[in-house]
Amino acid sequence: MSKYDVIVLGSGPGGYVAAIRASQLGLKTAIIEKESLGGVCLNWGCIPTKALLKSAQVFEYLKHAEDYGLKVKEPGYDFGAVVKRSRGIADGMSKGVQFLMKKNKIDVINGFGKLKTGKKIDVDGKEYSADHIIIATGTRSRELPALPQDGKKVIGYRAAMTLEKQPKKMIVVGSGAIGVEFAYFYNSMGTDVTIVEYLPNIVPVEDEDVSKQLERSFKKSGIKIMTSAEVTKVDTSGDGVKATVKTKKGEEVLEADVVLSAVGIKSNIENIGLEDVGIATDRDKILVNDYYQTNIPGYYAIGDITPGQALAHVASAEGILCVEKIAGQHVEALDYGNIPGCTYCSPEIASVGLTEKQAKEKGLDIKVGKFPFSASGKASASGAKDGFVKVIFDAKYGEWLGCHMIGAGVTDMIAEAVLGRKLETTGHEVLKTVHPHPTMSEAVMEAVADAYGEVIHL
Amino acid sequence: MSKYDVIVLGSGPGGYVAAIRASQLGLKTAIIEKESLGGVCLNWGCIPTKALLKSAQVFEYLKHAEDYGLKVKEPGYDFGAVVKRSRGIADGMSKGVQFLMKKNKIDVINGFGKLKTGKKIDVDGKEYSADHIIIATGTRSRELPALPQDGKKVIGYRAAMTLEKQPKKMIVVGSGAIGVEFAYFYNSMGTDVTIVEYLPNIVPVEDEDVSKQLERSFKKSGIKIMTSAEVTKVDTSGDGVKATVKTKKGEEVLEADVVLSAVGIKSNIENIGLEDVGIATDRDKILVNDYYQTNIPGYYAIGDITPGQALAHVASAEGILCVEKIAGQHVEALDYGNIPGCTYCSPEIASVGLTEKQAKEKGLDIKVGKFPFSASGKASASGAKDGFVKVIFDAKYGEWLGCHMIGAGVTDMIAEAVLGRKLETTGHEVLKTVHPHPTMSEAVMEAVADAYGEVIHL
Repeated sequence: MSKYDVIVLGSGPGGYVAAIRASQLGLKTAIIEKESLGGVCLNWGCIPTKALLKSAQVFEYLKHAEDYGLKVKEPGYDFGAVVKRSRGIADGMSKGVQFLMKKNKIDVINGFGKLKTGKKIDVDGKEYSADHIIIATGTRSRELPALPQDGKKVIGYRAAMTLEKQPKKMIVVGSGAIGVEFAYFYNSMGTDVTIVEYLPNIVPVEDEDVSKQLERSFKKSGIKIMTSAEVTKVDTSGDGVKATVKTKKGEEVLEADVVLSAVGIKSNIENIGLEDVGIATDRDKILVNDYYQTNIPGYYAIGDITPGQALAHVASAEGILCVEKIAGQHVEALDYGNIPGCTYCSPEIASVGLTEKQAKEKGLDIKVGKFPFSASGKASASGAKDGFVKVIFDAKYGEWLGCHMIGAGVTDMIAEAVLGRKLETTGHEVLKTVHPHPTMSEAVMEAVADAYGEVIHL
Repeated sequence: MSKYDVIVLGSGPGGYVAAIRASQLGLKTAIIEKESLGGVCLNWGCIPTKALLKSAQVFEYLKHAEDYGLKVKEPGYDFGAVVKRSRGIADGMSKGVQFLMKKNKIDVINGFGKLKTGKKIDVDGKEYSADHIIIATGTRSRELPALPQDGKKVIGYRAAMTLEKQPKKMIVVGSGAIGVEFAYFYNSMGTDVTIVEYLPNIVPVEDEDVSKQLERSFKKSGIKIMTSAEVTKVDTSGDGVKATVKTKKGEEVLEADVVLSAVGIKSNIENIGLEDVGIATDRDKILVNDYYQTNIPGYYAIGDITPGQALAHVASAEGILCVEKIAGQHVEALDYGNIPGCTYCSPEIASVGLTEKQAKEKGLDIKVGKFPFSASGKASASGAKDGFVKVIFDAKYGEWLGCHMIGAGVTDMIAEAVLGRKLETTGHEVLKTVHPHPTMSEAVMEAVADAYGEVIHL
């Protein structure tokens, strides 16, 4: 029986990053994966969807080439080639992880791992043991009872990125990041898209101003949006799908070729031996302390299967902290209040910290500032005037409570706010940080200035 | 005679921002401008060039549409329409400044202002006075004796952005931001471009690694580059221009339709009355203290005509500080060591702080980290793998000495480094700031990790 310092079960970004960091710290490490290295993120999530979205974004440029003084005859696309590019990039990334495993001398064990007592794991009949077992099995698309997925007409995100034929009409149920990204992609490529969202606003975790802006932008681009709406039934018996949607106005039946169910995720914690070992779970999540230790010594859990935000960068950060603690390093617990969230439709969304509503619900006295990209010189030059930066500060202590951005390139701009918040900046310090001109990032400085009555370009 | 608290001479970003801030602070303010509001930056610099570059960038997408699974027949452009778009955006921005002046109740005085003693200004025969006169007259393209500009065959940046006919062949002399931006633009649009740089590297103020990367990227895109090379003579007598270029190998004569001289700037400080008032200058710059006061009380100078970096965002920051000090606010002097610089060719360049060479020349013991975009998932998905992020830390105290980026979108990413440096962050704090996945901004975190031997994706 092979014995390791650390075995990681699952090779998504939480898992493989944990394995690399463990190896860097001198720990003998193995990783177990039943499919492709890199997990959902690299193979079926973050990366291939960004590839699809890039094709859509470039296609938008083709369609609007005249706006830039350019000429295009018959802009078109090859749906298969778009999907193939995306798959090729995902494969490349997975191979990259393979290379990193080899370079870091991490044993890759292919197969389905099942936890056993005594810090052991059975992989398809073969047993391995380790001083520290890190569970990082990730999540999959959640199925609603009213929306059973058949992989053909009612699909999850995985099928949505490899459809052989582009649907003419699509219903997207749920408007979190996954839902709106696919809605944007398919609409850009010419599919007739309707979003059905249960809550009153699309992208419901975002600040309401962001939701409203995205709704305006999406509607302008032809996406139909139904909020406070619920799919109560789907009928796949005919040629396409008939979805019964319940709103305040009553019920209506929508027809489409495909329904994409993007209503959340479900942890992959079944049949992996949690019960045998006695690892405690609660509502689909494995319970862990600040260092990702479960209730059973020697067993850890990181990533989407733990209570923090189900995001790749959270999983990676957890993986690193988890193994640094195992290696005896001094580590600071992750601040879950300072995790950025990004959505890569167009306009992009990026945010960190409290929304205005959350801050008010906490009874905080706040200063709010907002700067629209319509007043930004760079945005005008780029033809990207949709969106804004919104900042929220504590009026009494000056704490940067939240930052909410929607617009071109904002997913690369939010890091400033995350670092600033980590370093406990004040608004005044952001304001006196010279932002380069002309950039979209000036909008952060101007939004802060707006919060303090010092905005220049409004 | 009209009497003001503040008169600003010149309406570039330094001038008009100073005027707005002065007005916000309750000061009665006027601004004097001889041409269009907004100065060079809005009318002939930052903004219209970014509009041209956006057209070039979109045109690159058209030419490489197949890489994204898309189809285009005969991608083309209308050079006049590209220029017209750029002019339209510049005009819009200038009108925006007009609106801001009105909204902030700032009197706009059109004409050529000449300083007089006793805190007065003569504008085409009419006299105005103010307690505080801020000189913000900016700069223009510098002329070399060997390269006299005729506005037709030997031109400066101003003519370069409004050429009626696209040149077939162009020589760009000087490879600072202006030179390489135009080189990229014209090359993208099909002009045969040769860059002639006097120093051993293009973009010579940047870190050498950045210069080398840009040189590789530019050469790949077909731009010819001559470094350690000098134009000693131009002959415009024939159909085109014959430029004699001296290199180590000897002299050669290049032929082109147009030579763009981008060899620096010259302050607009002639005939504005500096001598009459007795305001001290040194080597083309007006001398000022930390609060932009000249040697003569009541006279101030900001922007390109003062010794700091000649950049629009520096001018704005100086303008704000200058009037805040006038208004009696507590102000901290600007840290000229923490000013970002951006170049908007493709790949973009953004940097702040010391280069590796500068740090070594200061005798500092440093840690250097570098992360190439070729190892970034987002860069792969976006088809933008050229470039890297490089960071330099002081080995002893952990100070973030410099950050140098080249790649897609980096001009919007540098703000994180500027803020981090202002807040005196350590590398460890940047490393433990959760950067969203998948973004280009992760490369900052990874470069820092590389400096400390903790990089994951290399």
